[in-house]
Amino acid sequence: MKAIGADKGFQLDEGNLFYEFDRAKPTPQKQELLVKVNAISVNPVDTKIRQSPIEDGPRVLGFDAVGVVEAVGEKVSSFKVGDKVYYSGSPNYQGSNEEYQLVDERVVALKPTNLSDVEAASIPLTALTASETLFDVFGISHQPKENEGKSILIINGAGGVGSIATQIAKHHGLKVITTASRPETVEWSQNMGADIVLNHRNDLSDEFAQHNIKDVDYIFCTFDTDLYFEKMIELVKTRGKIATIVAFNEKQDLNLLKSKSVTFTHEYMYSRPLHDADDLNIHHQYLTDITEKLEAGQYKPTVNKVIDGLSADSLYEAHKTLESHSMIGKLVITLDDIAN
Amino acid sequence: MKAIGADKGFQLDEGNLFYEFDRAKPTPQKQELLVKVNAISVNPVDTKIRQSPIEDGPRVLGFDAVGVVEAVGEKVSSFKVGDKVYYSGSPNYQGSNEEYQLVDERVVALKPTNLSDVEAASIPLTALTASETLFDVFGISHQPKENEGKSILIINGAGGVGSIATQIAKHHGLKVITTASRPETVEWSQNMGADIVLNHRNDLSDEFAQHNIKDVDYIFCTFDTDLYFEKMIELVKTRGKIATIVAFNEKQDLNLLKSKSVTFTHEYMYSRPLHDADDLNIHHQYLTDITEKLEAGQYKPTVNKVIDGLSADSLYEAHKTLESHSMIGKLVITLDDIAN
Repeated sequence: MKAIGADKGFQLDEGNLFYEFDRAKPTPQKQELLVKVNAISVNPVDTKIRQSPIEDGPRVLGFDAVGVVEAVGEKVSSFKVGDKVYYSGSPNYQGSNEEYQLVDERVVALKPTNLSDVEAASIPLTALTASETLFDVFGISHQPKENEGKSILIINGAGGVGSIATQIAKHHGLKVITTASRPETVEWSQNMGADIVLNHRNDLSDEFAQHNIKDVDYIFCTFDTDLYFEKMIELVKTRGKIATIVAFNEKQDLNLLKSKSVTFTHEYMYSRPLHDADDLNIHHQYLTDITEKLEAGQYKPTVNKVIDGLSADSLYEAHKTLESHSMIGKLVITLDDIAN
Repeated sequence: MKAIGADKGFQLDEGNLFYEFDRAKPTPQKQELLVKVNAISVNPVDTKIRQSPIEDGPRVLGFDAVGVVEAVGEKVSSFKVGDKVYYSGSPNYQGSNEEYQLVDERVVALKPTNLSDVEAASIPLTALTASETLFDVFGISHQPKENEGKSILIINGAGGVGSIATQIAKHHGLKVITTASRPETVEWSQNMGADIVLNHRNDLSDEFAQHNIKDVDYIFCTFDTDLYFEKMIELVKTRGKIATIVAFNEKQDLNLLKSKSVTFTHEYMYSRPLHDADDLNIHHQYLTDITEKLEAGQYKPTVNKVIDGLSADSLYEAHKTLESHSMIGKLVITLDDIAN
């Protein structure tokens, strides 16, 4: 079977070091599914891992995938051959940029029946990241009534995670304030359900004042945490909660959290698979809930750019697009060209 | 009425700059009580504020107090003249190192009937700090059954906050692991309810291994956060929670939180009064719950040293004792000498 890999970490300006290669179709063990991949999406985390050293190449990137269950391990209980599924996998396995992939059933859900493969591929990583942040980190209720009066600021509302986080937060009764700057990102974020879209080119304290917002219960940073660290502490309520998914470049002064007893979390959706957490199955549960809400029309897919045919070239193009930081919503690549 | 104050921030080796002075007995407004103070306790936060600059002296230190309600503001609804109360007040008022003090009723509770003034004075600040950390920050349940299987590490179990945090955590069903090093602190911490007392002179990873502890759900640092920051991240569970009440001396690398999606909170029990939080009354509720459990014999006071008579000299001695970092449990001063 075909896969796209690289033998060393690289920067895009070194040229395209991705290449197509053949590897043996793996056999699922225990709780593993073997999935024939139909579409994948590319996430910022892929571009970061691409640049990191490789111990034992070739390394196949990619987390999000949509496909069909081809074979199952002996302990699989939730899926059967032929099921259409989607997932964002785990760093413990080779990535989804290949024809057939192994994945642990505890992080998989049935694909929404009303969505195309392309639409479904835009969802898993971002929806799981947003679900963990909203439910595990911020501790919002699954009952919208109980979240009434609560507010969230999502920095970079038109990004992949921001787009689905906005929808989930809004659906669960929160007042959702996002940031964007271009007319097209403002419109996109409003379309995802944002109540107020602030201009992140301006000082956010001024933007809060202009929109008569005193403070917010939760802040979710999906862009440049160093830039927003102090500002978030200023804008959050006393005893409020801040989370980021973007690594820092600098050390920070944690005493700034003290005056308001602020809580800070560095959310990472692969912490459960990476540390083999007992409750790994919560990814299956979160994603199943997402499927139900997509099928009910309560959420919508966030795909905004599609590339037909996964190849070394198309993958390189996708990484270029993501690193331009101008991407709105999600980028999806179909597997037509290399799938048999 | 008499009060103990100072006109500038000072170090103990500058000599004793505390002095006794007269000030007018204040009149309670709105939700304020005027309390005739019978006993106070000295906390590490007092020694820190003593060293900070003063804008408009003399400044009266002190948070914890036990006393009798002497007069009430026109909007007071929970207390009446003659009630015996205890509280740890707010930085918005002059401190408790004086004969009569104003305090907002929303942070006050009735004194446990079975405790002496000295015993009761040891409780409020530490119990409120521990309650906020356990219930607000870690989100443990008030129902012990729901906390079954959860574990907490309390660094410096024999300190004032550690002593009551151990009791509250244990009473609510958590497995409580503390640290201490001297035979008398180990015994004190066990007496407070610790299941396991680790030796903080040794590497805590080795101590965990020796006691067959894999990791813990929560870590509460009450001593030298810089020293324990990285170690706590190593010892906490995936998606675990860490809190400290001790300010940092150095900036820290927050990316260390990422791999396990660790949550970090800088707990400060005066964040609610300082920022005039809507839910300030929760201090009254927490402290009332503490009173009930003290009266039921479920918690016990943590006082371990008593000085008779509040004066400039006795207060200086108390600050010296706290800064020696050898204090076990709490230090209380009665007001016999200056009270009329």
